[in-house]
Amino acid sequence: MINVGIIGSTGYAGGELVRLLLQREDIVIKWFGSKSYIDKRYSDIFQNMFQLVDNICMDDNMGELANQVDVIFTATPQGFCASLLNEDILGKTKIIDLSADYRIKDVNIYEEWYGIKHESPQFIQEAVYGLCEINRDQIKSARIIANPGCYPTCSTLAIYPLIKEGIIDAGSIIIDAKSGTSGAGRGAKVGNLYCEVNESIKAYGVSNHRHTPEIEEQLSLVSGGEIKINFTPHLVPMNRGILITAYGNLQRVVSYEEIKGIYDKYYKNEYFVRVLEKGVCPETKWVEGSNYVDVNFQIDPRTNRIIMMGAMDNLVKGAAGQAIQNMNIMFGLEENKGLKLVPMFP
Amino acid sequence: MINVGIIGSTGYAGGELVRLLLQREDIVIKWFGSKSYIDKRYSDIFQNMFQLVDNICMDDNMGELANQVDVIFTATPQGFCASLLNEDILGKTKIIDLSADYRIKDVNIYEEWYGIKHESPQFIQEAVYGLCEINRDQIKSARIIANPGCYPTCSTLAIYPLIKEGIIDAGSIIIDAKSGTSGAGRGAKVGNLYCEVNESIKAYGVSNHRHTPEIEEQLSLVSGGEIKINFTPHLVPMNRGILITAYGNLQRVVSYEEIKGIYDKYYKNEYFVRVLEKGVCPETKWVEGSNYVDVNFQIDPRTNRIIMMGAMDNLVKGAAGQAIQNMNIMFGLEENKGLKLVPMFP
Amino acid sequence: MINVGIIGSTGYAGGELVRLLLQREDIVIKWFGSKSYIDKRYSDIFQNMFQLVDNICMDDNMGELANQVDVIFTATPQGFCASLLNEDILGKTKIIDLSADYRIKDVNIYEEWYGIKHESPQFIQEAVYGLCEINRDQIKSARIIANPGCYPTCSTLAIYPLIKEGIIDAGSIIIDAKSGTSGAGRGAKVGNLYCEVNESIKAYGVSNHRHTPEIEEQLSLVSGGEIKINFTPHLVPMNRGILITAYGNLQRVVSYEEIKGIYDKYYKNEYFVRVLEKGVCPETKWVEGSNYVDVNFQIDPRTNRIIMMGAMDNLVKGAAGQAIQNMNIMFGLEENKGLKLVPMFP
Amino acid sequence: MINVGIIGSTGYAGGELVRLLLQREDIVIKWFGSKSYIDKRYSDIFQNMFQLVDNICMDDNMGELANQVDVIFTATPQGFCASLLNEDILGKTKIIDLSADYRIKDVNIYEEWYGIKHESPQFIQEAVYGLCEINRDQIKSARIIANPGCYPTCSTLAIYPLIKEGIIDAGSIIIDAKSGTSGAGRGAKVGNLYCEVNESIKAYGVSNHRHTPEIEEQLSLVSGGEIKINFTPHLVPMNRGILITAYGNLQRVVSYEEIKGIYDKYYKNEYFVRVLEKGVCPETKWVEGSNYVDVNFQIDPRTNRIIMMGAMDNLVKGAAGQAIQNMNIMFGLEENKGLKLVPMFP
Repeated sequence: MINVGIIGSTGYAGGELVRLLLQREDIVIKWFGSKSYIDKRYSDIFQNMFQLVDNICMDDNMGELANQVDVIFTATPQGFCASLLNEDILGKTKIIDLSADYRIKDVNIYEEWYGIKHESPQFIQEAVYGLCEINRDQIKSARIIANPGCYPTCSTLAIYPLIKEGIIDAGSIIIDAKSGTSGAGRGAKVGNLYCEVNESIKAYGVSNHRHTPEIEEQLSLVSGGEIKINFTPHLVPMNRGILITAYGNLQRVVSYEEIKGIYDKYYKNEYFVRVLEKGVCPETKWVEGSNYVDVNFQIDPRTNRIIMMGAMDNLVKGAAGQAIQNMNIMFGLEENKGLKLVPMFP
Repeated sequence: MINVGIIGSTGYAGGELVRLLLQREDIVIKWFGSKSYIDKRYSDIFQNMFQLVDNICMDDNMGELANQVDVIFTATPQGFCASLLNEDILGKTKIIDLSADYRIKDVNIYEEWYGIKHESPQFIQEAVYGLCEINRDQIKSARIIANPGCYPTCSTLAIYPLIKEGIIDAGSIIIDAKSGTSGAGRGAKVGNLYCEVNESIKAYGVSNHRHTPEIEEQLSLVSGGEIKINFTPHLVPMNRGILITAYGNLQRVVSYEEIKGIYDKYYKNEYFVRVLEKGVCPETKWVEGSNYVDVNFQIDPRTNRIIMMGAMDNLVKGAAGQAIQNMNIMFGLEENKGLKLVPMFP
Repeated sequence: MINVGIIGSTGYAGGELVRLLLQREDIVIKWFGSKSYIDKRYSDIFQNMFQLVDNICMDDNMGELANQVDVIFTATPQGFCASLLNEDILGKTKIIDLSADYRIKDVNIYEEWYGIKHESPQFIQEAVYGLCEINRDQIKSARIIANPGCYPTCSTLAIYPLIKEGIIDAGSIIIDAKSGTSGAGRGAKVGNLYCEVNESIKAYGVSNHRHTPEIEEQLSLVSGGEIKINFTPHLVPMNRGILITAYGNLQRVVSYEEIKGIYDKYYKNEYFVRVLEKGVCPETKWVEGSNYVDVNFQIDPRTNRIIMMGAMDNLVKGAAGQAIQNMNIMFGLEENKGLKLVPMFP
Repeated sequence: MINVGIIGSTGYAGGELVRLLLQREDIVIKWFGSKSYIDKRYSDIFQNMFQLVDNICMDDNMGELANQVDVIFTATPQGFCASLLNEDILGKTKIIDLSADYRIKDVNIYEEWYGIKHESPQFIQEAVYGLCEINRDQIKSARIIANPGCYPTCSTLAIYPLIKEGIIDAGSIIIDAKSGTSGAGRGAKVGNLYCEVNESIKAYGVSNHRHTPEIEEQLSLVSGGEIKINFTPHLVPMNRGILITAYGNLQRVVSYEEIKGIYDKYYKNEYFVRVLEKGVCPETKWVEGSNYVDVNFQIDPRTNRIIMMGAMDNLVKGAAGQAIQNMNIMFGLEENKGLKLVPMFP
């Protein structure tokens, strides 16, 4: 039995962790942490959990929690995990941080894009970037997992095989991303009200979204050079789902079969990445509620570019599902344990 | 291992049966029947099933299928199951019919409301109405299950305890129901297009919806008398979910505690019925993707009426989930096997 | 030229007033009042108004405003208008109050249901309830209009002809109402976030919604007796629209033609009330953006009840449109001036 | 008084033409043409038009219609207008064709992308591409207007000033477009059902959408060279709206002020194009129901690219509104007559 604690359990990502972990018989959630709803009953915050989780929300005391659990998930705002983590805690428990605190290896870039001081930079190098399909081996022995951001997960998985294989010009990458509204969090803001979001689409954070340097770092690691990208996220009137449409200049003439072969090479043994068939465009609804990432591509010989597409559920593979996938790897369990979820349609 | 066949597997209820059965290790789906998509790959019809169900859709040959499986689910239009069922088939396999063919015991009422001739009335009396919380014992030994309609399931469970206990005037019942659009099926009709349904709500089938006599029969069985109700369904711009708001005249002054006690008496041991706490109104999102029915009530002393409410997922407890619950009972399995689904939010 | 001021111009009803008044050449909006956004540019709050209304939001000083305008619209929270109104203001300008402050003639009922003390009860009797189709004559000479609530407008218009004509048992009325989310206002609350409302439906305020006594008062005035009703509003995942489904016991056997004749008698000369044809159920989308109320009915001889239905846009006929209709009447203009809006579909 | 006929009046663009023209006192719609609903009452097809347009739908006889009206709008499938147009008709009436038949000057490109033979190529050169902000002068005297496609309108207006001024590399243009579902038409297809579209986003027609050569032709005309672009449309779960996010490589270092100056130069006198303020991203909801196009841009010095954005209502500026704008110009009326529509929010 694995004992887990969740700090930040009353946000959407925290709620999804609870939903997924509840369905497992080898897991006990010992701690439902919450800053906003301390001392309230969890099922009063998420009524879907009525009679399933009637625990009381606890404060965010990571030190005390470390004594009680085998792993702590932090689904908290930027800076929170970094401000509390220390060797004592790491001596007692593992950390899977769903925030950005340990994702970016260069602390200056972190501080520049996030606009806050990093309070425990000594752990940055040790933390493993938990994109399981790429860093599986390092994850096994990690003490700290930097669980990837939603956009970076989908973007990297859709793009990196073609960078690694030198198919596209690394300087030409443009990522046009679309996300459901749960990605905006559960905070009470006018801009996230139903009537403000419904029946509309817009770009936001154009050229300055914080996931930009995270994607750049991952793609740079793959390419060996320093990659700069354009990244433009959009807010879509739906609850869940991320779609990535990425554009790159081809380095040479390629055929459908060649590119398909590359994707298959990277993903044919990956349980959670589905390379779709020719001409089928990924659609977020087809992966809803599951840990899948659906990817595909289209070559445009007229412009000598390739369009790379990826779709996933931002709260599952983009947050809670990948965090559990990381936990499974860290604890030597089957990687897809508790994650063989069939997408819900409609 | 239980071998199952699904006739009508490419509609929304059929798709949900596949989604739920796929997650079980004790079930093999041997037959994906479809009238519209015969010889097509199942995952081309439901792309969410890519790499999960790449079987080819078969025709709707119930006779041949009966040789191969332990149970057949028919998620087909009215009249289909009745037109094919015979003793030979029933000698070989069990039938769980998700259509209305065997729900109504009086064949004249069936023929009047459905406007078609019933082709195997000899099985009507034998078929067990599969509302598990009420007819559990009879289901155990049934050969034919008439899987209840979505509205009747939610309506009956929300109302019947108060009828049984004589709390409300059986002649006063008004049911105002609201359903997501998956209830309208997957047929290509202008009225079900996104732009026609989105951003709108309307009543339909006012005073003549086919679920009316089904609800009346169930409530009449409970009360001992003949009950006529008003039933008004509405189409809501959402994929899934049914909400029932029912009104009844109180026979006498009652207290919150008394009514709460009645609901608890009927449901405290029922895994799939959750009686919410005082003042909490059921909400369809809180049961989405699960087999739960959430019920609650509000007494209005000003008018001496009681408002009874119920929410469930029309494709789960209202169709596929309840069908599987019936299968579990028929095969002597744990009733909630494969159905301990945590509602998905958001 | 009529000069108008709007207090509370940055909520949804206030925004709709601006949208509708902007299209008129005989109106100048002199004052965009706002408590929350004082000194901000109006088009920064409603970006749809960019380059159309770049005025600066002013504070809510009704006294000062009264010197500058011919009529003040107050689209403000309950109690605000009552706290500021006085004879001096009424000597200078007319008031159309979109809040509930002057709708209910019995101040005790107001204070009980709204939970606040009424600060200017001396004006309650003078104020005219601005349901134009009923009180047109009194509106002409009114100084204060109590602009009706959204649910009361739609409910009263759908029901009152049958009460007036003695067709239904006044003690049997049940109103099941459904509203789009703009009815919940523009305040930043978790419960109104996109992800909390989308893909769900629920009842709220069951048996205790504040529009209940308002509807009861209007129906009682029509019937001559004291009417108590059941009123159950529901929140629907759409921006705009109210649908009323009301139930009443028939006093005697009636025919379709008789009831149709009654509705036609009341509404055939009413520009904004459309009595739909036999069998057509009102749908909120068909009136979106317009000042129409679509009504219809269905007789259920099996239960001897009648179902009365009404649909309208809650922000137009349910708020801003009716307020302007009142203004037109008060100023001796054509009643539908600026309101001949064709519903937008889809 | 201008007499108009609409062929294809029962699709979404046709319905929008009716909605907009109905509000004008100088227009009479004499002919409601429809292939699918001939002899049916118009308001039975669009119930929002009940009592407003109770005319009977006529067949699509353009020859007969030409005798009766001053202008014919054809909101019909590709090939229809081209198959019927002749000199006789053009001698009697003007044509505003909302299909693609006369948009592309090279008939070979038309036939290649649309997969049909053009039946009246003799009119292609004469037809004026009705992008009013660019071709206003030619429109004045045109007999045939090729009303622009929705994506090309929004794309061209967002991009062309920077091409014309030589700011961006014409070979680098990537357009990532998002459209509401009304763009998919009113045909009964499974893929456009509510449950298939709702809660999902996907790309479609990647690299082969028919609007690609139309955009290329317009941008090529501006640049003087032959431009090839990447164009990727996406289907968004909302009724109306198009958002364009376009990417181009900067030819040199530019400042915000310089680019803002260019947009202002092109658009400051254009009633229907709003250049938003610094940092404000266009949002489709802000233009809903109006003829506006909102445009803005963001320079990304890190990658030396510029992101150009545009939002409009696909049924108004993208179809019916622009068609009426063209009509106004052709008939010497004020260009914005009947089109000073305030966007509806929410």
